[in-house]
Amino acid sequence: MGLFGIYGAPDAAHIIYYGLHALQHRGQDTAGIVTFNSDGKAYDVTGRGHVNEVFTEANLAPMEGILGIGNVAYDGMLHPSVHSQPLLFRHFSGDYAIASDGCLVNAGLIRDWLEDQGSLFQGASDAELLAHLVKKEKPGPRIFPIIEALNMMEGGYTFLILTKNRIYACRDKFGIKPLCLGRLGDAYVISSESCSFELIGAKFIRDIEPGEIVTIDHHGIRTRCYAPYHRQKLCAMEYIYYARPDSDIDGCNVHAYRKESGRRLWQEAPAEADIVIGVPDSSLSAAMGYAEASGIPYEMGLIKSKYVGRTFIQPSARMRDSGVKMKLSAISSIVRYKRVVLVDDSMVRGTTCRNIIRMLREAGAFEVHVRIASPMTCYPCYYGVNNSTHSQLLCSGKTPRQVAAAIGADSVAFLSPEATIASCAGRRELCLGCFTGDYPTMIYTRELEDLED
Amino acid sequence: MGLFGIYGAPDAAHIIYYGLHALQHRGQDTAGIVTFNSDGKAYDVTGRGHVNEVFTEANLAPMEGILGIGNVAYDGMLHPSVHSQPLLFRHFSGDYAIASDGCLVNAGLIRDWLEDQGSLFQGASDAELLAHLVKKEKPGPRIFPIIEALNMMEGGYTFLILTKNRIYACRDKFGIKPLCLGRLGDAYVISSESCSFELIGAKFIRDIEPGEIVTIDHHGIRTRCYAPYHRQKLCAMEYIYYARPDSDIDGCNVHAYRKESGRRLWQEAPAEADIVIGVPDSSLSAAMGYAEASGIPYEMGLIKSKYVGRTFIQPSARMRDSGVKMKLSAISSIVRYKRVVLVDDSMVRGTTCRNIIRMLREAGAFEVHVRIASPMTCYPCYYGVNNSTHSQLLCSGKTPRQVAAAIGADSVAFLSPEATIASCAGRRELCLGCFTGDYPTMIYTRELEDLED
Amino acid sequence: MGLFGIYGAPDAAHIIYYGLHALQHRGQDTAGIVTFNSDGKAYDVTGRGHVNEVFTEANLAPMEGILGIGNVAYDGMLHPSVHSQPLLFRHFSGDYAIASDGCLVNAGLIRDWLEDQGSLFQGASDAELLAHLVKKEKPGPRIFPIIEALNMMEGGYTFLILTKNRIYACRDKFGIKPLCLGRLGDAYVISSESCSFELIGAKFIRDIEPGEIVTIDHHGIRTRCYAPYHRQKLCAMEYIYYARPDSDIDGCNVHAYRKESGRRLWQEAPAEADIVIGVPDSSLSAAMGYAEASGIPYEMGLIKSKYVGRTFIQPSARMRDSGVKMKLSAISSIVRYKRVVLVDDSMVRGTTCRNIIRMLREAGAFEVHVRIASPMTCYPCYYGVNNSTHSQLLCSGKTPRQVAAAIGADSVAFLSPEATIASCAGRRELCLGCFTGDYPTMIYTRELEDLED
Amino acid sequence: MGLFGIYGAPDAAHIIYYGLHALQHRGQDTAGIVTFNSDGKAYDVTGRGHVNEVFTEANLAPMEGILGIGNVAYDGMLHPSVHSQPLLFRHFSGDYAIASDGCLVNAGLIRDWLEDQGSLFQGASDAELLAHLVKKEKPGPRIFPIIEALNMMEGGYTFLILTKNRIYACRDKFGIKPLCLGRLGDAYVISSESCSFELIGAKFIRDIEPGEIVTIDHHGIRTRCYAPYHRQKLCAMEYIYYARPDSDIDGCNVHAYRKESGRRLWQEAPAEADIVIGVPDSSLSAAMGYAEASGIPYEMGLIKSKYVGRTFIQPSARMRDSGVKMKLSAISSIVRYKRVVLVDDSMVRGTTCRNIIRMLREAGAFEVHVRIASPMTCYPCYYGVNNSTHSQLLCSGKTPRQVAAAIGADSVAFLSPEATIASCAGRRELCLGCFTGDYPTMIYTRELEDLED
Repeated sequence: MGLFGIYGAPDAAHIIYYGLHALQHRGQDTAGIVTFNSDGKAYDVTGRGHVNEVFTEANLAPMEGILGIGNVAYDGMLHPSVHSQPLLFRHFSGDYAIASDGCLVNAGLIRDWLEDQGSLFQGASDAELLAHLVKKEKPGPRIFPIIEALNMMEGGYTFLILTKNRIYACRDKFGIKPLCLGRLGDAYVISSESCSFELIGAKFIRDIEPGEIVTIDHHGIRTRCYAPYHRQKLCAMEYIYYARPDSDIDGCNVHAYRKESGRRLWQEAPAEADIVIGVPDSSLSAAMGYAEASGIPYEMGLIKSKYVGRTFIQPSARMRDSGVKMKLSAISSIVRYKRVVLVDDSMVRGTTCRNIIRMLREAGAFEVHVRIASPMTCYPCYYGVNNSTHSQLLCSGKTPRQVAAAIGADSVAFLSPEATIASCAGRRELCLGCFTGDYPTMIYTRELEDLED
Repeated sequence: MGLFGIYGAPDAAHIIYYGLHALQHRGQDTAGIVTFNSDGKAYDVTGRGHVNEVFTEANLAPMEGILGIGNVAYDGMLHPSVHSQPLLFRHFSGDYAIASDGCLVNAGLIRDWLEDQGSLFQGASDAELLAHLVKKEKPGPRIFPIIEALNMMEGGYTFLILTKNRIYACRDKFGIKPLCLGRLGDAYVISSESCSFELIGAKFIRDIEPGEIVTIDHHGIRTRCYAPYHRQKLCAMEYIYYARPDSDIDGCNVHAYRKESGRRLWQEAPAEADIVIGVPDSSLSAAMGYAEASGIPYEMGLIKSKYVGRTFIQPSARMRDSGVKMKLSAISSIVRYKRVVLVDDSMVRGTTCRNIIRMLREAGAFEVHVRIASPMTCYPCYYGVNNSTHSQLLCSGKTPRQVAAAIGADSVAFLSPEATIASCAGRRELCLGCFTGDYPTMIYTRELEDLED
Repeated sequence: MGLFGIYGAPDAAHIIYYGLHALQHRGQDTAGIVTFNSDGKAYDVTGRGHVNEVFTEANLAPMEGILGIGNVAYDGMLHPSVHSQPLLFRHFSGDYAIASDGCLVNAGLIRDWLEDQGSLFQGASDAELLAHLVKKEKPGPRIFPIIEALNMMEGGYTFLILTKNRIYACRDKFGIKPLCLGRLGDAYVISSESCSFELIGAKFIRDIEPGEIVTIDHHGIRTRCYAPYHRQKLCAMEYIYYARPDSDIDGCNVHAYRKESGRRLWQEAPAEADIVIGVPDSSLSAAMGYAEASGIPYEMGLIKSKYVGRTFIQPSARMRDSGVKMKLSAISSIVRYKRVVLVDDSMVRGTTCRNIIRMLREAGAFEVHVRIASPMTCYPCYYGVNNSTHSQLLCSGKTPRQVAAAIGADSVAFLSPEATIASCAGRRELCLGCFTGDYPTMIYTRELEDLED
Repeated sequence: MGLFGIYGAPDAAHIIYYGLHALQHRGQDTAGIVTFNSDGKAYDVTGRGHVNEVFTEANLAPMEGILGIGNVAYDGMLHPSVHSQPLLFRHFSGDYAIASDGCLVNAGLIRDWLEDQGSLFQGASDAELLAHLVKKEKPGPRIFPIIEALNMMEGGYTFLILTKNRIYACRDKFGIKPLCLGRLGDAYVISSESCSFELIGAKFIRDIEPGEIVTIDHHGIRTRCYAPYHRQKLCAMEYIYYARPDSDIDGCNVHAYRKESGRRLWQEAPAEADIVIGVPDSSLSAAMGYAEASGIPYEMGLIKSKYVGRTFIQPSARMRDSGVKMKLSAISSIVRYKRVVLVDDSMVRGTTCRNIIRMLREAGAFEVHVRIASPMTCYPCYYGVNNSTHSQLLCSGKTPRQVAAAIGADSVAFLSPEATIASCAGRRELCLGCFTGDYPTMIYTRELEDLED
């Protein structure tokens, strides 16, 4: 999921629109924007689809305020009919809206506790839990219930809270999910990734720190640390797969990370081959690093069709049998009679990789050596939406040789956990939970069982 | 424009649909399919938009025949309200349909001659001219009027002619436009580019020769040479820019061509720099070749947004002033403090290149050295739809130094015409008309004046 | 707003779809359906637009249950971004959904009380208030909190409450809003109007009584009277304007009511004229009654264009000046040189009536005598969504002669309150609040002030 | 089909848009507009769908001229993929466009003759034939080839021919199809029906005469009679069914005609009954006339759903079995225990009538007496698009008693041919071809056989 917020610019809604557009890769199923107009009234537009489908000139027109937040999301494990974020809440002490990225691991416990206290829920999102926790029951600044609430919530998450006067930007105390701050003229912007700053012409200021709440209003910026204990356990998969290559997270450019990981992958797992190929688009940087370090030429052996979209007529079974392919195709004149190194960013279920290897062999490749620019994914992730269970993870309980057999490769090798961290210059910590099973937070039984459901 | 035809497969219309989808880069404004059902009735679906917008399960459903042709096109210089191709004609001697790629240079003469003879036209396309020329006035095979017609038509073109029983595939005698033949099970397929064969699982057989007419029907394939004189003057821009990198044209892979041209570009015009960057997507191969030959690391300094589409809300003037960018963005953490070699495929009007250079400098690049993987474009093209006139061509009448000044680069260099041909291993001829002004065909005055209109 | 519910049929979602379609005239801005599948999971589809725009084969496909409820609504005075009904709530004691028609008059008081108790609201609807009131805090049947809640809620309303096992159908104790029960094979259906039963082939059983809760589940039907005091104060405007002519409400057919009111209008306010014209579509029945009683021929002097829709290009000011008309046009060859009786159902703001009179005069009518088949609308309504304030009501504080002057008519006359009741054979009570200011319920100050806002 | 043209107004394209909108009932499958801008360039927008779907602000924007023509049409018997009208033709002597209503009976002969002369056709429309006939082969005014062409063309038709300077409006010499002239400020308008004049604020001037060509240009209006022999054989079905009730054709209002035909129907075929019901919408006027003449009350026993559209989810077979109805429903509380006179405008295939009778009986009607406000339709029509063949016409070869048995009515009676003509005050001729088999023109064998195909 991707979050974007702005305070202090006319056309706030339109700038959020462009900001969300740059974060589209973080969520392609739903999108939403909430703003407060100068009269203190909240407006929201939410819907299913891409940013350019959900929002139109017409439905953004009534939004005239200078502050607002937005969200893009995948459906993931949430209930299919859940309302799109940001969620807007109405209360006599003032309306407010909340957007979230990531997952709580103790959501079930908090929900039970809140229902016991009389709360009633319309959806299944963490944002609705937070909303009930930060309700202003008594006079006084809202920052105090926010601090209290965040200390109750365990997991990898970021939240944007919007009231008619200010935005609160919050990042979990392990820094598992990214969030950063920028400046656009006199306005401040908040985004899950810095790539959205480029698009709107904003300047990057800094990352939000783990366990930090940044408050933005007409006074400017104020900051607060809500958790005395905090770490720098950014999700390694942000560097490896999720983020856009033109984003900088916690001081490291994503493309640069991937290229470095490719170089280290060559050092740890060289291969005798004629060409290096990357799986488009997220593995191209790592493949270039591998090629650069090895001296083996990097080639575009796989082409991704740019026009495949949701309105595409799906081929019938008969046509698929006769060979109709979608999305990816192998270029025979490049891979024929070649020993190929196929670099991919990670191996989760292995389905795509298996298909690509078959395509390469059909196109005439002699050998296919798979090199994965991350360790073996053996454990589920509890902080994101793409939750595979143990039984779906190809590498779980297998040796690399067994993985090679399962996907039909001549050899398979993975990057070591150490190199995964070291590829990020100067960094000593990353969350490697899905690789090592060593999670920064506690994992609560109830959620575990839900996943294997 | 892109052409696709098939003879001999059930689901002909659906296979054409996938074939056109793979040719989408050759025309994104209109698309059309015509098939003949087994009862001899023709069906056509044509419309404005991408392949996945024009065709639906519902409008392809009545097409049950085993043969048909399709077309994708840009609006180009044609009249805005021209009907989409393929054009379907009804005649007592049997209905037929025609789709075309490329442009005649003597269309005006032929049109005048036909109107004098009493013909009446609904559009401005070359296909309609051909239709009048190949009308069966007297008994006898249709191949004879086709041969006669093609000998009257001068230019760079390919045509597909569909009757209820067969397809005629024709390529101009200079081979300026590409066309190739493949096999899908028992069926034959014809396409502007071989990349569409991969997608549908067909095997490439061979290119159609310059001056050749291939007839496909229930007898199989027959061939005829309609012009005793023919050359191998394929449009160099097909290799340089138009075609998809995974296509092979006249025996040479497009990606391989581009990479080789990048290598030769380094030899002819080296630059002292820290990184090499290509303009996405068509210049990436050449940039890799340049990097490989020079040893300067290739980096992804420019990112293209994948989601920009036609339904996108356009930023207002105020927002553009404040920095909102679309499509391309420079990655500051990669280009900052660097001397950059920017590789582009060609320089036509120079607008995009000028914008990219400004973006790179704003992102912190110290120097920007532009290297163009083709010669200076100083002359208009008369064979295609993207017709710029002399006065719009940036390089026309300028030295490279003047070009550098015009676009704000530290230096500019171009590939030589010789290297442009030599990059295509074993080839001795290409049409370099737009670079050298040396056109394979005569250019008729009337059309020239129309262009400067 | 229109409500529809069903218990006991496969395809429940599709039947609700057709049922809502027949109720479309009660709400054209939003529509929604919630069902429970056999596994106890709730599914909802809600959205903006007409029934045939919001629902598709695809989004109804996952709904396989045998029970569900639906809703169509106008935006009315609600907040523009309020979520569409039915609202779905998730609670550890079981999920449930609520749809409502009508308005509470003490919503503000209940909302304040609930927020004081710690509740948090996402919208501004009465359904959300009811949801918080009927939350199952302690074990025991849900019917008890429902009874308690309905006794707190004052106003003109109907509610459908859906749990995974049953539907509760509730009507306010004054019977201001209509609700009726039918049978479709083995299933029971609930609808705001009986016209939806015809469409789906169901049989009308009876109206839900004022102050009644009907529970439908696998036991069949159970009934409970939640209010010891109840009256038959059905909103007169249901007969006069809101309902479809093919509906029967509380034992009287709507078309029959309107025709009878037209007859009585002639008796109370005859006119010397050549033809009788009704304003399409809701006044046609009354006009026919007037014509039948008077012997003056009924003519179609006004034609309503069937194709005006929301996607229509609006005429520019210049074109409107030059005479371009939308929706209604007067037929000159019918009204020219004629004295016209124009029958309309009610007079609220008078704008449409004034325009029609001008059109009739331009088309050549000599005299236009307006006859309104209801009393003068002098007071706002607090039970529905179309809330005009005192100052917007044309008749407020005017004599009929002043009204005639204001709209440009030769004469204006209204039906008496007595005849308004008497037109409904055998009935002795109707809510005539908007005509007489005599409301069945208390009216709370706060809401009154909101309306004049 | 409906035609609309305008000469002399800015916003010509928009006025045509509104004009076509008022003619939408004459053709709901395709729509098109062609205009000439002041620079002499033609623009066309054509497409499938209703007027408000085909045209948008954006696609009408480039049309700035003061003259143009438009067309709405049903697909009818034309080839499914025929291009929408108006058809635009390009010729060195000047571009021109043609739109047509109606059908030629000798189209096959003319087409053969033209193909023999070397013409080539893209569609199957009469407009394309006319275009080839009126091509300016030699210098001199275009009116001469037009006169010559119209004398060759036999059938019931109207044509609008648009050149960059003028519009030619032509009506067949029997006056089978309607066409009329109006004035909008300084501009002239031409329309198939006068109802479109009301909508745009234009004044009706007169009908175009049978065999007349009206030329409109900057000189004003000129007229020519191209056929020395002409009659007043307007298609009776225009009054009975096709035209909008608010149109005047050849001096008689359509609604007035229908009402009179209803009165005469009572005189010729009285029925002992309790209520009179008309089939919405085209039979309501006749039903009112019947009721008025008989003294039997007119009731709305059938309701047509206003919202049924093309995007509607179709009920499954199972749901249809269980009773789900679309479009029309009978009101039980009105028809129950009643003897019903059902007035319909005409009886062609009888399917709808049979269904309505069943619905009425299921709703409780005791007797259903069908009264048709036109004679028995026993012969095909060769002048329009709704061509049923002999074998599909229910009445062909049957007595009224046999028709009653076929549709399940208690009795059936038809209006006499004499009364059909007499209902149109002062008129002595109408085309009654489909009732009597007596056609104004010759009927050519070839077309006859095509229809039984």
